[in-house]
Amino acid sequence: MLGNFTYCNPTKLYFGKAAVENLRTELPGYGKNVLLVYGGGSIKKNGIYDQVVSILRECGKTIAEDAGVMPNPTVEKLHEGIARARACKADLILAVGGGSVCDYAKAVSVSVNCDEEPWDKYFIRFEEPTCPIVPVACVLTMVGTGSEMNGGSVITNHAQKLKIGHVFGEEVFPKFSILDPTYTFTLPRYQMISGFYDIMSHILEQYFSGTDDNTSDYLAEGLLRSLIHSAPAAAKDPTDYEARSNIMWTATWALNTLIAMGKDTDWEVHMLGQAVGAHTDATHGMTLAAVSMAYYRHILPYGLARFIRFAVNVWGVDPAGRTDGQIAEEGLRAMEKWMKELGLVMNLRELGVTEDMIDGLVKSTLVMKGGYKVLTEDEIRSIFKESL
Amino acid sequence: MLGNFTYCNPTKLYFGKAAVENLRTELPGYGKNVLLVYGGGSIKKNGIYDQVVSILRECGKTIAEDAGVMPNPTVEKLHEGIARARACKADLILAVGGGSVCDYAKAVSVSVNCDEEPWDKYFIRFEEPTCPIVPVACVLTMVGTGSEMNGGSVITNHAQKLKIGHVFGEEVFPKFSILDPTYTFTLPRYQMISGFYDIMSHILEQYFSGTDDNTSDYLAEGLLRSLIHSAPAAAKDPTDYEARSNIMWTATWALNTLIAMGKDTDWEVHMLGQAVGAHTDATHGMTLAAVSMAYYRHILPYGLARFIRFAVNVWGVDPAGRTDGQIAEEGLRAMEKWMKELGLVMNLRELGVTEDMIDGLVKSTLVMKGGYKVLTEDEIRSIFKESL
Repeated sequence: MLGNFTYCNPTKLYFGKAAVENLRTELPGYGKNVLLVYGGGSIKKNGIYDQVVSILRECGKTIAEDAGVMPNPTVEKLHEGIARARACKADLILAVGGGSVCDYAKAVSVSVNCDEEPWDKYFIRFEEPTCPIVPVACVLTMVGTGSEMNGGSVITNHAQKLKIGHVFGEEVFPKFSILDPTYTFTLPRYQMISGFYDIMSHILEQYFSGTDDNTSDYLAEGLLRSLIHSAPAAAKDPTDYEARSNIMWTATWALNTLIAMGKDTDWEVHMLGQAVGAHTDATHGMTLAAVSMAYYRHILPYGLARFIRFAVNVWGVDPAGRTDGQIAEEGLRAMEKWMKELGLVMNLRELGVTEDMIDGLVKSTLVMKGGYKVLTEDEIRSIFKESL
Repeated sequence: MLGNFTYCNPTKLYFGKAAVENLRTELPGYGKNVLLVYGGGSIKKNGIYDQVVSILRECGKTIAEDAGVMPNPTVEKLHEGIARARACKADLILAVGGGSVCDYAKAVSVSVNCDEEPWDKYFIRFEEPTCPIVPVACVLTMVGTGSEMNGGSVITNHAQKLKIGHVFGEEVFPKFSILDPTYTFTLPRYQMISGFYDIMSHILEQYFSGTDDNTSDYLAEGLLRSLIHSAPAAAKDPTDYEARSNIMWTATWALNTLIAMGKDTDWEVHMLGQAVGAHTDATHGMTLAAVSMAYYRHILPYGLARFIRFAVNVWGVDPAGRTDGQIAEEGLRAMEKWMKELGLVMNLRELGVTEDMIDGLVKSTLVMKGGYKVLTEDEIRSIFKESL
């Protein structure tokens, strides 16, 4: 049964080859000063930087730059961004990059005019912005986080060993995003397949919750089947436009609030993975992959009916002649096989985790309440141990 | 492969029991004069009219009324609505009803400040509005058309024997819509199941097109499975909230542009059905049901691969031991069985069509180009004959 909800997603998307040209349509709607936010500089090598800057100049914008956004953007970097946005009196923050860059741009956006410490206000106390927001737009170069069409923003505090996400309301969503699948072609393989698993994890976190019948779960199954079909083709040939375009579109809908409407959601895999990220700085999607199988096998008995549905509807497991438990396990086995064939990291050691770090990981793991089992500290510890 | 597209759907939705209370949040954002648009008066019997009017009054609005919107809104009625909106200087057009009422409200919205004849401008020449638009909002009382979250507007011209739909851009979409599944409980059975098939037809019109792999088609399959599951439960017990809420949500996503993104679409069933509607004034969903089986059996050879996928992924047909043609036909048989069990009208005679009307129907049928076969006049005639 769908619970009550409000749905609104006003982000405008320009999708396809040469979609960046649509910047010309959108830019006149904003003031003169643009803060161009990006990461480690790969956009300078693949030509995206030049394309964007030349359109900004043609549209008469004054460009200030904020480069060097790291894969897990830090509180320190956030303060640097705030200072830059204030210095240039930014009318628009244009994020050119993947989810980290877009997440970071949103964090800057709600902090530029904020008198309080943004880490405390937004990521510890989970408050909503009470100050004017600087609009954000996005040119996406890596898929996975859905940040191009949602209010999510994840920031890492290394001093506190915390990596925390805040999901802001629709006024913080990017005003528009440019999604050109060819912009993702040059992404290194490790980041690419890590992003693919991030997408799958987003869908699963919303799917593995609730016991009733719900349109959202049928949509989730559709997205999963599309991803399962396209990811191996993209891994084989990263320039397969059909696969990359479908994955890009799936990623957006995997985390733009639609498939969470009217239902509970889990998100415990993200809490486990984010704890690993805070301690190791490992790539986000790989931290999720490394803990997923142990987590799902652990909660399977508490959500058996959904795991059976997952096996049959998503992985095409034939239920004939199998017990309920066997059907459910067969679905997880199919998922594990798919993950291994993609080349995902299936254990924590490979991400730099050692046994003596586990107590720290347990301490950094937030416990969520929407899934099939609210984890105890002992359960979290044993999931980390099984994932080593 | 996803073709290039722009996606934007800014309509805000309030979904669930007592969702009408959210009018209090939205109304202060609009001027004083509200044109309340509704149909035959069923909202006065079931109490929805009183709820809406009392909230409008509490919010200090001046209410003008435009009642009597018919199931297939006419050009004459449109001109009446324009006059009423002008007379009350409407700041907001609030449509309380089903798709016809909402479609009609949009047609009024783009015509109030228009100096040209709106039928010619919007429905014959398919032009976009060049005048200021009066914002539309919607309180939905019947599901099916998706009009609560799209730019669609279908108007009938009896003098010209034409029923034509225009899909307007996002500035014409309702600003917000109230979706309370309990508001649909009192709908007469015939209208209810007709709406269910309208939903299915919307999905199929977008699904039966293209031969490539596309995330949109996976989403369409998810929506179809949800609808196939919920519709019989709702037909058995119209107050089954789980079924009615899922159907309401499925209907919205079946026709709010999402599952058409990046692909061709068909819409020939709607053209056949709308011709029947223009000649008989029959209920929209039933006109679609009556022509669908003949149409899909006719185009099956031209889109065999998609019909096989439809059979397997949507209806769970086991392909083992069957030829391609048998698998595909088995899927259509499953659909036909589901339609009959719902109680849909499966032939045109029941809708008042006689053999001598067929030439007129053929003449009124627009030919679409996105499906698996562009129909000739002879093919259209034979589909109508087979549907008698």
